[in-house]
This record gives sequence, C-alpha cells and structure tokens, in this order.
Amino acid sequence: MISFGNFGRVSTLTNRQILLRRRPQGLLASGDTELVAVPAPELADGEALVRTTYVGIDAAVRTWLDDQPGYLPPVGLGEVIRAAGIGQVVQSRCPAYAVGDIVTTLTGFQEYTTVRDDIFTTPVDGPPDQVDQRAVMSIYGPTGATAYFGMTGIGRPQPGETVVVSAAAGATGSVAGQIARIAGARVVGIAGGARKCRAVVEDFGFDACIDYRGEDLPAALKQHCPRGVDVYFDNVGGPILNAVLGRLAPKARVVLCGVISSYLTGDHPGPSNYVNLLSKTALMQGFNALDEWGRFDEAFADLRRWHDEGLLVHREHIFDGIESCVEALNGLFTGVNIGKTLVKLAEAQPLSELG
Amino acid sequence: MISFGNFGRVSTLTNRQILLRRRPQGLLASGDTELVAVPAPELADGEALVRTTYVGIDAAVRTWLDDQPGYLPPVGLGEVIRAAGIGQVVQSRCPAYAVGDIVTTLTGFQEYTTVRDDIFTTPVDGPPDQVDQRAVMSIYGPTGATAYFGMTGIGRPQPGETVVVSAAAGATGSVAGQIARIAGARVVGIAGGARKCRAVVEDFGFDACIDYRGEDLPAALKQHCPRGVDVYFDNVGGPILNAVLGRLAPKARVVLCGVISSYLTGDHPGPSNYVNLLSKTALMQGFNALDEWGRFDEAFADLRRWHDEGLLVHREHIFDGIESCVEALNGLFTGVNIGKTLVKLAEAQPLSELG
Repeated sequence: MISFGNFGRVSTLTNRQILLRRRPQGLLASGDTELVAVPAPELADGEALVRTTYVGIDAAVRTWLDDQPGYLPPVGLGEVIRAAGIGQVVQSRCPAYAVGDIVTTLTGFQEYTTVRDDIFTTPVDGPPDQVDQRAVMSIYGPTGATAYFGMTGIGRPQPGETVVVSAAAGATGSVAGQIARIAGARVVGIAGGARKCRAVVEDFGFDACIDYRGEDLPAALKQHCPRGVDVYFDNVGGPILNAVLGRLAPKARVVLCGVISSYLTGDHPGPSNYVNLLSKTALMQGFNALDEWGRFDEAFADLRRWHDEGLLVHREHIFDGIESCVEALNGLFTGVNIGKTLVKLAEAQPLSELG
Repeated sequence: MISFGNFGRVSTLTNRQILLRRRPQGLLASGDTELVAVPAPELADGEALVRTTYVGIDAAVRTWLDDQPGYLPPVGLGEVIRAAGIGQVVQSRCPAYAVGDIVTTLTGFQEYTTVRDDIFTTPVDGPPDQVDQRAVMSIYGPTGATAYFGMTGIGRPQPGETVVVSAAAGATGSVAGQIARIAGARVVGIAGGARKCRAVVEDFGFDACIDYRGEDLPAALKQHCPRGVDVYFDNVGGPILNAVLGRLAPKARVVLCGVISSYLTGDHPGPSNYVNLLSKTALMQGFNALDEWGRFDEAFADLRRWHDEGLLVHREHIFDGIESCVEALNGLFTGVNIGKTLVKLAEAQPLSELG
C-alpha cells in the first residue's frame, strides 16, 4: 500500500521510500516496513538531489535494523532504511556536485536522496551514461574497498599460501578471493550449494570451492588445505568459522569481515577452536573499510588495473524496482545471490537529457 | 617409592627423576608419575652435566603431559617430565659451558640433566653463588620474555590506555601488568581471591584488581574500565576471556598467552563475544615467546633496567625438594601461587667448592 506523507513544501518529484515500521525478527516480514510516496525535498544551500539508480543490498543493512549500537546508529522506526547505493545528481545547490554527476552515497531504500559535501558521497569520473555503475558498486566502492583492505591489510597472502574465503560467491568474498589469487595464493572458497560453488570456480577463478551444505566441512578443509589455512577471510562466523579455526596453519591470519550466520538471530556461538590462535600463534582481526577512507584511491587504482587486465571480474544479481528492496535484502540470507545484490531504480541519463 | 634403573655405566652421582607413567586426567594423581633414582649419565664429547637448582613450574608443563600436538612434542610415557629450570654445570665436555656456570635449560623434573650447546641452554653471567636465580626464573628467562613480547609486541599499551591482565598474580601476568604500567597505561588485574588481589595491587603495583571469584566480573569490568579495555593480556581463556571481550574498546588488542582454565579438562568453550573483534575492529593474537628467541637480549636489557630502577618487582612461591614437583604443578591449577612457582632442589656452589 502506498500512502502519501504530509509535507510543508510540495515538489514536482515524487519520492517513493521504504520506511522501517517495526524491528524485524529474523527475515523481514510484512508489516516490518512500509512503502510510502512523498514529495522529494526542496534543496537548501549546500545540498544536491540525487536520483537513485541502484540500491546496494549488503548484510550490514540488516544489522542497522536492530536496536544495537554499531559504527552507525540503528535506523529509527519511521525512518528510511539505510543502504549504500549509486545515483545521479538531478538538482544541485552544492559546488561539489554538478547536475549529471554519478555519485555513490547512502541512498537508502528510496528514489531520491538529499546529499551534502561529506565523506559518504563520492562523485564517479566519466560521462554519466557511460559510467559502469555495476562495476562501481561491486569494485570501486565500499564493497571492493572492504575486500581490498581486509585481504591486503590483514590477510597479507603470500605466493603459495592457502587462502580460504567464506561466502565466496558473495559480493565481498568473490573479490577478496580474486585479490588473494592475484597475490599468488591458492584460494579455496566456501559457499552454499552446487550452483554457487560452480560460479566461484568458473566465474571467479578460485582453485576450488567447498559446498558447506553438501560436504563435511572439516573433512573437505583437510582435503583442500593439506598444509593448513594461512589466511581465512570470514564473512559468516558460526560453525564455518569454527571449522576453519580448527585447520589453521602456523602464523595464520583470520580476517573478520562479517557474521552473516548470526545477523538474523543475534546469536553468536563462540568458536571453541579459537585456542588454535594460541597454539598456531595466529591472529584474528576485525576491520571496517571506512577506517581506511583516506586510502580508498589507492585501493581503487589497484582494483582498476586488475579489472582492466582481466584478472578481476564482478557479477551482480539485479532486482528491479523499489518494491523489490525487501525481497532483495532477505535474499542475502536465503542465499539466492551470486555477486553483488543490487536493486535497479532508474537509468542514468546523458547530460543532454538533464535540465 | 624409589626404584633404580638399570644402566650400562655407573656414575658416582645419583639422579632422582619424576617419570610420567600414565596420562593424567585433570590434576596429577598418585600413579600418574613415579619418582625413580638412577645413576647420572656419563658425558659424551660436547655434553655438560647440569645439577638442577630450581625447577620452574609453568602451566605449559601440564599441556605437555597430554597426548596433543603442540610446539613441543608430548612427554612420552616413561620419560622425565619436561620443565624449564635453572642449574649449575658440574661436569663439562662442552666448550660452551664451564664448570660452575649457572645456566637456564630444560632441566625437567630431575636433579641432573645432560645439556649440549643448543638454544635451550643459556649461561647466566656472574659468579655462580651471586647470581640472583629467582630473578632469572621470574624475569630474565622465558617467563619474563613471554610477558615482554606479548605486552610490547602485541598489546602495545599507550599512555592513558586501560590494560586488563588475567592471572594477574601469576608469574607472567604480574610482569606483563607491570610492563604496561611502565608504558603509562592504567592496569587492572583479574585474580582469584582477596589474598591474590591484594598482592596484585600492593606488591605488583596494579591500579586495581578484580576478584573474579567474589565479584560479578562484567559489572566489575564496567566499573574499572569505564572507557573499555584497550589491551587484554589473557592467561586463562574461558568465561573470563569472554567477559573482557564484551568490554573491548575500539581498536583493542587481545593478547592470547594461555588458556589455563581449560588445560585440565581439554575443554575450550568458545567466547561468543568474539564478534566484538569485528564491531570494535579489534585484534586477538596468540604468540609464543620462543619465536622471538633472537630478541631475548633486547627484552632482558629493558627488563633489567626496569628492575634496577625499582619499577619491576618479582615474587616466587618456593617448594622444596624434588618430591614437591607434582604438588607444585597441581598448585598452579588450584590457585596457591603468587608470582613464579619454583621447586628448589639444590644450592648453587661457589667456584672454590667445585672440583
């Protein structure tokens, strides 16, 4: 159902938004959210209006819906659901952004967003209708930066080492594993189901992939990592993390990137094999790519070179229209996506068509 | 009961040893070990005979009695129980060691040990009857090096930061906490019982100490660490580790030095609060001071300076006679010791009294 908000000033643009109405238990259910249509806001000085082209669907979005402290505050009841996305500047009263610019920003689950000149909003070079927006969302943005800084900064794979990546078919895992391969490591993915495992090997070029649903994970890890695991890039936590901790090589590095196995339940079983961090003199470290904000250009330069050389590929799972945002978010947890999940809301326009 | 072994060549020296007869379940019980008396071995070229003065009793000794792989192999049934200790060279056919030298080595639970010129055997400077052997065992040896490299290499406390140390009255914890204080941090110990907590504050100079037996640990951590825990030096694992992980400050460093809470049972409950490593972008790292062997001199130079300046104190809990070794080892787990546990077997002799 679409309801219209009551705004003081009326714009000619209608902005459809998905608001949080109730904190979800597990997957988002009917009644947790509401799709509303409101006039797009009038701009104040220093603001620009961005029309969302793609909403990025990350597991982090789900964490922001719980009433838990984190590196960003929880989304409040009645607020637009927060998400990182990409869009095009359609009006501007901000010198940092020209009409037509493609920018990455916290679009949220909505068609129009007001932005300011802040660190969350970054223009993308190039003619607006020629920017490869999917590549930006998969590689030249927070997802690529997360894979890059986690793998190169903490994992530090060396030639000949064995690297394991969980959620290997996902947006971050697929890029992280490719970075490790470029560094000369042998890379073993972990993913759920034969379809994903095939994509991990055939599309993303991993050396092998373990189907944690169909295989005995400790046995498969022993088979694929006979000398132990030198680097583990963990997106999932839970029993998969524990199994890999049981297989660490001496001086191993465990990169904690996510705990998707527990985002729905809030339940975090402790990995009893953490004691191997001691016996193997290994480290386990959490990180947030936003801490490396000042070095994003460095990351993107490497990622772009690898992409241009054909060493780094990306895939997207595209949903259509704002009505799909909730289904797309739930899909992260039911395991439908290969690569980055995006919801397409609009096409970018060539400059000639923008007023 | 003392039995005599059957050796081909007979020495004039009798060597009493404690052998492992059965793998212990939990604390060592009667029948797990046997005290035997055998002739001390004749020396081959390149060997020296060391008379044990003090056996060092570490939690690691207990781990070597289980049939588990580790950085050293398990003690075999029928073998002398392995332990690091200190002693005096009484015969030498090795150019590296002169009669009279005080050396640290893997003495084991026995009165005499044959040593070679290897990395496990290190001479201590000074006239033999004037060497402060207790200081060597507490500070200028593997215990001090463990505290030093764990705290300075991984913990890296900064002035004004809050550092928590568990088993704070123990050999390693007491030194680690003092090193953090010297670095300018506020140091909170965790220990079991009022007697130990008093020693942690009054003898070792910590700013505070939490009695985990008598206090609610999460509440006490909140009270004593209002801005969170920047560095945690963990000797115990288990629920105490989990409680401190629940209180981490951003960018915290968790030093994994031991898991004494589970050495007896082999049971390692996983710390569910490990997810804070992610939300706080913190790290948890295991280490072994032996990996830093080449830098021990550097550690000892710092430790000696601090000791000489009165900034670093040490305490020992002394048992007497080889018959006490098993009781002393069990005492680590029943919580009797403050500072380093040693078993005294003999006095060092001045050079004039050695043949």
